[in-house]
Amino acid sequence: MSTSQPRGATGPLVAGVDLGGTKIETIVVADGEVLGRARLPTPPESADAVAEAIAETVRSALEAADVDESALAAIGIGSPGRAADGIVSHSPNVAGMQEPYPLGDAVSKLLRGPPVTIDNDVTVATLGELERGAGRPYRSLLTVFVGTGVGGGLVFDGSVWRGRGAAGEIGHVTVKPKGRRCGCGGRGHLESYAGRASMQAKAERLVAEGQHTVLFELMAKHGRDRMTSGIIDRALKHGDAMTERLMGQAVWALGLGLSSAQNLLDVEAIIIGGGLAERFGQPFVDRIAAAMAPLLFTPERPPAVHAAELGDLAGAMGAVVLAST
Amino acid sequence: MSTSQPRGATGPLVAGVDLGGTKIETIVVADGEVLGRARLPTPPESADAVAEAIAETVRSALEAADVDESALAAIGIGSPGRAADGIVSHSPNVAGMQEPYPLGDAVSKLLRGPPVTIDNDVTVATLGELERGAGRPYRSLLTVFVGTGVGGGLVFDGSVWRGRGAAGEIGHVTVKPKGRRCGCGGRGHLESYAGRASMQAKAERLVAEGQHTVLFELMAKHGRDRMTSGIIDRALKHGDAMTERLMGQAVWALGLGLSSAQNLLDVEAIIIGGGLAERFGQPFVDRIAAAMAPLLFTPERPPAVHAAELGDLAGAMGAVVLAST
Repeated sequence: MSTSQPRGATGPLVAGVDLGGTKIETIVVADGEVLGRARLPTPPESADAVAEAIAETVRSALEAADVDESALAAIGIGSPGRAADGIVSHSPNVAGMQEPYPLGDAVSKLLRGPPVTIDNDVTVATLGELERGAGRPYRSLLTVFVGTGVGGGLVFDGSVWRGRGAAGEIGHVTVKPKGRRCGCGGRGHLESYAGRASMQAKAERLVAEGQHTVLFELMAKHGRDRMTSGIIDRALKHGDAMTERLMGQAVWALGLGLSSAQNLLDVEAIIIGGGLAERFGQPFVDRIAAAMAPLLFTPERPPAVHAAELGDLAGAMGAVVLAST
Repeated sequence: MSTSQPRGATGPLVAGVDLGGTKIETIVVADGEVLGRARLPTPPESADAVAEAIAETVRSALEAADVDESALAAIGIGSPGRAADGIVSHSPNVAGMQEPYPLGDAVSKLLRGPPVTIDNDVTVATLGELERGAGRPYRSLLTVFVGTGVGGGLVFDGSVWRGRGAAGEIGHVTVKPKGRRCGCGGRGHLESYAGRASMQAKAERLVAEGQHTVLFELMAKHGRDRMTSGIIDRALKHGDAMTERLMGQAVWALGLGLSSAQNLLDVEAIIIGGGLAERFGQPFVDRIAAAMAPLLFTPERPPAVHAAELGDLAGAMGAVVLAST
């Protein structure tokens, strides 16, 4: 039987939703404890269907936590694209959310009217690492999430810095003028070297030029149409030279971009997350820190460099923090 | 006859000191009005002699304002190097201040014991532009001062961001990996292309390789041992191709470094000051803005780009702001 208050919990019950292009990951939390989890694929049909699926994951997570919907104090959502006042836009990988869509109202109405707070997914993951992850000891941070693309977040004096709404695009700092083409149309950006989509595009060009790699065989064998962190890992274990070179270039670009950012910002710590960091962990983070070291303006006082702690849950946990503040 | 209160002033009387490697520039201000000014060369003998000279400029500026020393409420000083709790260090171009020197106490004792506040000169110039200069309409800024070297400052939510004490080193972000050697020992930094010392070193190397320029003839003719902004201006008026190329590279590097910083920070405005900006004014600033434009991640919403307003007085006026807050 479900109850209207989670057993033993005294703080408010909050749901955190990580809305991604492929899946929705939701947790319910009280007093910092994850009491329930649920996951659904992101529906491709419409924005309304996405809102329905989000509400469904919230109900399932509450059920898993064995508490009643009426106990829910608030919902936080991290979404791709831009988010302001509960309205999501500029999100090409979620159905119906390239144009402005009132996701907050839609989700609230499908449940019992809890307040819904929405922010950009990378901002929300940064909040999660700041309050509940590797950023806890610090008041100033630079986060970088190395996935299909490369995004980042900034924390000054304990608060996330959003700029005019678009801050943190460390993936689009130039590391090599006239360098590799970026997904955004620019050239030589950090993301052109460290984002998996750009790494895959580069591998395809190299294969077209006649170079050898096991990457695409591995993708076919494991039924992947994208070069995932797992595929990269397998290729490295095969001793694939092209993959080693691509990873070396990614580490070089991260070292260069992050050292330039650090020379400008002088933050206490840099936190590295996203698929590649989750897969390759501390050795990957240490390689990046080593690439940064000779490029720091105050090498005697490098920033702390950590792997993100929350992994898969960074988005959902950050959304809980967002809704709790 | 001097009075103990400036005529007509109701706010406190504050002195602002811009301590440079070659000169000390001091103003006294009440209610935002500059009431007196004084200037002395920076003594090369010792830190104590520098403190004496600073006190002397304060006395002279008070005299010029026709007010008594007893009316002085506070002194602010902008100093090269690092400054914390009135102690200056890491300042190789001011005698005796590479090692920590208690400049605040020394200056206070030489006068009638007013409180003395000291901060880094670029931070102080940023404060000046924020409160009394081109930054007045904004709550977030990136400043860049293009002089012998290239320094910068950051303002978020209306406050200067100092990091752990070394923030703002935009001169040492990499604009070209393995590029031109920088004075700091690094390579391809923004300062390697836009700092006058690096531009001069490059011109010397080009001349050694047999290339022609009027730069060094002009320096000899006008009795300069350094390539000042005035010399650069004259060389451009002679149609000197090398100078045009060096200036083009400086503008390119500023456009690249500032656009990367903007993609990361998303501030409202960028303010460009220092010797080159003072000499070449808005056309120079516009060239930099044009170089940035194609590299912005949100080109539909570029930051405002302004020339610094306070010019020569940015340091001294910023020091007044520093002492007033």
